Amino acid sequence: MAEVAIGVILNGVTGRMGTNQHLIRSILAIREQGGVATDDGDQIMPEPVLVGRNADKLQRLSAAHNVGKWTTNLDEALSDEHNHIYFDALATNLRTPNTLKAIAAGKAVYCEKPTAPNTDAALQLARAAMEMGVKNGVVQDKLFLPGLLKLKYLIDTGFFGRILAVRGEFGYWVFDGKDQPAQRPSWNYKKAESGGIVLDMFAHWRYVIDNLFGPVKRLSCIAATHLPQRVNEQGALYDADADDAAYATFELENGIICHFNSSWCVRVRRDDLLTIQVDGTRGSAVAGLRECAVQGDAYTPKPVWNPDIPQPIAFFDVWEWMPDNHPYDNAFKIEWEMFLRHVVKDAPFPHTLVEGAKGVQLAELGYQAWRERRWVDVPALDV
Amino acid sequence: MAEVAIGVILNGVTGRMGTNQHLIRSILAIREQGGVATDDGDQIMPEPVLVGRNADKLQRLSAAHNVGKWTTNLDEALSDEHNHIYFDALATNLRTPNTLKAIAAGKAVYCEKPTAPNTDAALQLARAAMEMGVKNGVVQDKLFLPGLLKLKYLIDTGFFGRILAVRGEFGYWVFDGKDQPAQRPSWNYKKAESGGIVLDMFAHWRYVIDNLFGPVKRLSCIAATHLPQRVNEQGALYDADADDAAYATFELENGIICHFNSSWCVRVRRDDLLTIQVDGTRGSAVAGLRECAVQGDAYTPKPVWNPDIPQPIAFFDVWEWMPDNHPYDNAFKIEWEMFLRHVVKDAPFPHTLVEGAKGVQLAELGYQAWRERRWVDVPALDV
Amino acid sequence: MAEVAIGVILNGVTGRMGTNQHLIRSILAIREQGGVATDDGDQIMPEPVLVGRNADKLQRLSAAHNVGKWTTNLDEALSDEHNHIYFDALATNLRTPNTLKAIAAGKAVYCEKPTAPNTDAALQLARAAMEMGVKNGVVQDKLFLPGLLKLKYLIDTGFFGRILAVRGEFGYWVFDGKDQPAQRPSWNYKKAESGGIVLDMFAHWRYVIDNLFGPVKRLSCIAATHLPQRVNEQGALYDADADDAAYATFELENGIICHFNSSWCVRVRRDDLLTIQVDGTRGSAVAGLRECAVQGDAYTPKPVWNPDIPQPIAFFDVWEWMPDNHPYDNAFKIEWEMFLRHVVKDAPFPHTLVEGAKGVQLAELGYQAWRERRWVDVPALDV
Amino acid sequence: MAEVAIGVILNGVTGRMGTNQHLIRSILAIREQGGVATDDGDQIMPEPVLVGRNADKLQRLSAAHNVGKWTTNLDEALSDEHNHIYFDALATNLRTPNTLKAIAAGKAVYCEKPTAPNTDAALQLARAAMEMGVKNGVVQDKLFLPGLLKLKYLIDTGFFGRILAVRGEFGYWVFDGKDQPAQRPSWNYKKAESGGIVLDMFAHWRYVIDNLFGPVKRLSCIAATHLPQRVNEQGALYDADADDAAYATFELENGIICHFNSSWCVRVRRDDLLTIQVDGTRGSAVAGLRECAVQGDAYTPKPVWNPDIPQPIAFFDVWEWMPDNHPYDNAFKIEWEMFLRHVVKDAPFPHTLVEGAKGVQLAELGYQAWRERRWVDVPALDV
Repeated sequence: MAEVAIGVILNGVTGRMGTNQHLIRSILAIREQGGVATDDGDQIMPEPVLVGRNADKLQRLSAAHNVGKWTTNLDEALSDEHNHIYFDALATNLRTPNTLKAIAAGKAVYCEKPTAPNTDAALQLARAAMEMGVKNGVVQDKLFLPGLLKLKYLIDTGFFGRILAVRGEFGYWVFDGKDQPAQRPSWNYKKAESGGIVLDMFAHWRYVIDNLFGPVKRLSCIAATHLPQRVNEQGALYDADADDAAYATFELENGIICHFNSSWCVRVRRDDLLTIQVDGTRGSAVAGLRECAVQGDAYTPKPVWNPDIPQPIAFFDVWEWMPDNHPYDNAFKIEWEMFLRHVVKDAPFPHTLVEGAKGVQLAELGYQAWRERRWVDVPALDV
Repeated sequence: MAEVAIGVILNGVTGRMGTNQHLIRSILAIREQGGVATDDGDQIMPEPVLVGRNADKLQRLSAAHNVGKWTTNLDEALSDEHNHIYFDALATNLRTPNTLKAIAAGKAVYCEKPTAPNTDAALQLARAAMEMGVKNGVVQDKLFLPGLLKLKYLIDTGFFGRILAVRGEFGYWVFDGKDQPAQRPSWNYKKAESGGIVLDMFAHWRYVIDNLFGPVKRLSCIAATHLPQRVNEQGALYDADADDAAYATFELENGIICHFNSSWCVRVRRDDLLTIQVDGTRGSAVAGLRECAVQGDAYTPKPVWNPDIPQPIAFFDVWEWMPDNHPYDNAFKIEWEMFLRHVVKDAPFPHTLVEGAKGVQLAELGYQAWRERRWVDVPALDV
Repeated sequence: MAEVAIGVILNGVTGRMGTNQHLIRSILAIREQGGVATDDGDQIMPEPVLVGRNADKLQRLSAAHNVGKWTTNLDEALSDEHNHIYFDALATNLRTPNTLKAIAAGKAVYCEKPTAPNTDAALQLARAAMEMGVKNGVVQDKLFLPGLLKLKYLIDTGFFGRILAVRGEFGYWVFDGKDQPAQRPSWNYKKAESGGIVLDMFAHWRYVIDNLFGPVKRLSCIAATHLPQRVNEQGALYDADADDAAYATFELENGIICHFNSSWCVRVRRDDLLTIQVDGTRGSAVAGLRECAVQGDAYTPKPVWNPDIPQPIAFFDVWEWMPDNHPYDNAFKIEWEMFLRHVVKDAPFPHTLVEGAKGVQLAELGYQAWRERRWVDVPALDV
Repeated sequence: MAEVAIGVILNGVTGRMGTNQHLIRSILAIREQGGVATDDGDQIMPEPVLVGRNADKLQRLSAAHNVGKWTTNLDEALSDEHNHIYFDALATNLRTPNTLKAIAAGKAVYCEKPTAPNTDAALQLARAAMEMGVKNGVVQDKLFLPGLLKLKYLIDTGFFGRILAVRGEFGYWVFDGKDQPAQRPSWNYKKAESGGIVLDMFAHWRYVIDNLFGPVKRLSCIAATHLPQRVNEQGALYDADADDAAYATFELENGIICHFNSSWCVRVRRDDLLTIQVDGTRGSAVAGLRECAVQGDAYTPKPVWNPDIPQPIAFFDVWEWMPDNHPYDNAFKIEWEMFLRHVVKDAPFPHTLVEGAKGVQLAELGYQAWRERRWVDVPALDV
């Protein structure tokens, strides 16, 4: 049993999500548990190197979490041969140039989604990695949420019979900042800063649908900017010109229909911030982030329309919650462990930059379908 | 104070809905309460005449409910001058010829929806009534459901601020009849018998949207026949070739987006068989058939995405149920009373056959949008 | 970004409220967080100097909280030019002479309420500060309680429609010390020591009403000494000659009627020690110290008087709790931060000694209204 | 054991309260139970004679409840010697002339409250009865509500120690009829029709206070017309010029202070439509219409003001509900039985027309106190 130490450049993890999910709950959590165990008995030990533009923030972050290395000089970090992996959580429009640099330096690259602001750039990235022969990956965290793992379990065990349709509801009320502060950053609502819910969420819907239900054939989409004015972090009013809600229907190759509403202008009357309902011939399920409720054919009630009496069926009571028969690890950490095994031990890793480019493609086609008010086919990517 | 007796021909009310909603809970209930009170102090007393093809059924129905008159001969009933109103609850494809006959006989006509199997026929019916100068109407019962009346109260009192979007979820699991009997008639699932959920439900969505949220500008729609084989009332397998689910998005003139899923292949994890969620700048509501839950701005929670902990907000607990501050009458009866006052006292009645034709139109356009995989504009009807 | 250190004399903070609220949870908490951030990026760092009569207590307090400076000599502290602010939490009758001294020394002054035992003295204080041109303020902590901030949110967002009336209920059972120790100091119940609930609480009601509901036009008040004998901290019986309950009605310029019961002789059957119910045309709210329950028009029940059956409406269940969408800081600390920004950066600060004098005035008029058994007008203060 | 039949003229019981409380739940309920048992073993059997102006209504009411006698001719009913009792539930302004007639005819008279629209008329009535030597009474139903009987039990058993203060909260939200129908008749809100909450409720507060807590010495009162426009039973807007809320404080001879808020413009966040909180040295109670919660000294919590933490005391949980150790009869019926025993068997009956006049007096003084904005003494009535 050997410990395999490997330098991991973390570029752009000083934000809330980067620090919490990638640094603390993934890399540092892996270190704390003694590394990633591999099939041959080794332990892969990631050694983080923080990279960013703001030295103050980097210093504070390193100090707070006892991370030995940080630098504002990416080239320096890339030139260190001990650093085998480059991870990128920068703003979307900065991702391509930085990651291309890492590819050129022969590093294995791992990126947040969307991997680029448009399909061409995303493809360029994927092709560059393939041409250089470097291992590569994209974050597809939602696949590893406990709720979606439970859903996958149901699919794998044939619970649904034939799946007929999928309903996704994502979102919650994001305050506009006028009467009380907003709970999301203002760049989300500005086109010029790569905001927009289609760009943000369709990258997720692509891999969720592809991996759980089948390849997307075509889509219809209408989006909206429901709240055209919001107040930013400094208390100033600004024009919110990016889309804050999207209503999209996906037709799959296998005939399954998936309808997803994504919105930051919806009040939540459902089990969780994201719920995915799957209906099949033998049963249905509604998955949230961590929980999943099921209703099998045998205990499906038989409603009859009768508005003259109060609804006699307590619909929420005829579903069963799936148990937590085993502990669920952090979704980001699960994928980090897979990627580390892939880089060090050549274990399989399907979540490549090509898959990342598919996410960007779906968002781009979503905007096109909205603009042209028609269904748009999803062509294979020319990689 | 005078009692005004008026003969009402009821054609095709031997089915479950016709008998329960139109005969028992509307006409007979009105008789029991002493008629319909009018502003000038009179009481309109409807006197039903049952018409149908099956004498046995008619006789049994009359006997069971102490209805004096019935006949299998429509012409005879139409020729009786005491009968001022013709009501039609026949199968959709039989509705046009029969109702045209009644119009020709100078009767006020009142129809179930859809008023015809296609827009041309529906328009022909509406025009015929206008040309003959007879009063006319279409059943738009969902408008008078307690849950939707509560929703209307919220709209009228400005609860929502500006309305942004509407989510409709209609449907439930209709068993296919193989393992246990189906709870809906087989004609619903056959094209040749005017089945299909688009034809059935879009007629409703048209008047619900028009009356509560604003005129529809265009729509996108994909439907499906999720279960292509079902077992009929006689236990025989049949090809279900009509659509049993439809996923449609409506863009309104005022910018509101309404997405409605209609399905007989969905298991219910929501408050009721039909729920309509409305989100506005100052509050949201979810209406069912009889109940309506509200969440105002002041008690809207502020969720933050964190999949590492169980969802800390109990989302169903931060909604308030609207009280039943007054008793709600049967939805069908309310409209019957309006129509009787319209016929006898010339009271206003906006739910005309032209409105009925609009419902048929929306269904027809829904089928077109599905076939052509594009958004279809909703033109004004040429009446 | 600079740190601006500023000496703050704290006179009379050895009591429970002074130590907890002003020293620990305000000044020391501000120091711990790195000072008060200002708009121009500076950090104001208050440096406390404890002043009092009892050297032992001061020494213990400084040691316990690591406060470097303390003295029993106020003049000495005032003569130190580094000390820009004088804060006074002495007994009310000692406040005027000490604060006048600080004003004369050119210090910015900040006082607990009531600012003086009578209106003349309170006005003298306010005028002295204005004449010397020193910044000045009075503690109006209740305005910054989470419950009242929620109430303000409702007012600002138009939740109430037109406000009709306000019901305040303050108080709880203060044991008389005979069977078990009292939980308030004995001076509260003695006239000679500036006790009395009118003097104590009307200073609060004045700014709460003025700031939330509108200017007070006149008031009616009856007070009482419900318990004329109590047992003091030393176990000795004493004559409690100050008022321990007051029942007062305030008529506002805008027609709103506010009735406030204040009592130390009441057992609590309500949500909190202080509750303020506001009724408006479109909704009502009941605020406590930290929580606030709301009932909007749409879910207001419609009760009918029927004593023959148990009350069918569960009245507490038809109110919704407002969520804690953002963390609430300590009420005293919020105002301290405002005052520090006012002194150092000239930021606006409306809670001046003139406002403090208005509180004393209302108490004085309350006593007059009680004595003369009539409504008393609230004249503008001659400042 | 003899049955003593006695004719009881019921004038004006066709309204909701008259029919339900006096006819059905009192007189008819007494008949059903076999009469009123008296100490000497007899059974008093009241025989109702309905009197009114509307023959149709009287006929329907008699028919519905199988009452043998009814007439539109009061003189006729009065001239029948079998009729010993005259009961009056007419509109207030009709009560005096009709009841005087009955007194002149030598009948025992029993009246709803207020017994007259002003004190002079109420006194005239009381004096007339005394001069004629007829037995007389006024309805004081609230005294016999289960909740107030429980309160009386606590007073009688010394539970409170010395009573210090009383808080009455009466009222609920009466819709203005614009968005949904009002639940009270429009005459309540019109001065010209003897509307106004002071006139309505102070008649109650007088006997409640006098009987439970002691004689009223003086009062302060401010009333308001919070909603100046309402919609009537016919759907028409009208000017509501009568007072719809009153905030009054009563000082009793014994020093107890009673504050009563009465309002039709308040949303209910308390146990019941009327709650009366009584605080005493040894315990407190809060009575509703049927229930009564108590908190004795031994389980009184000792709250401390600390707004920095959520309130640690669950205040509603530290009260005990009084049990229903015996069944409670209808409040109106209890008093009817007392009056029947008084008339037939000369049993004591303290609720005389003089007491009724006191109620009218308190309302009149309430209006005066409001108008003159001062405390008004309550003089003894000159009977």
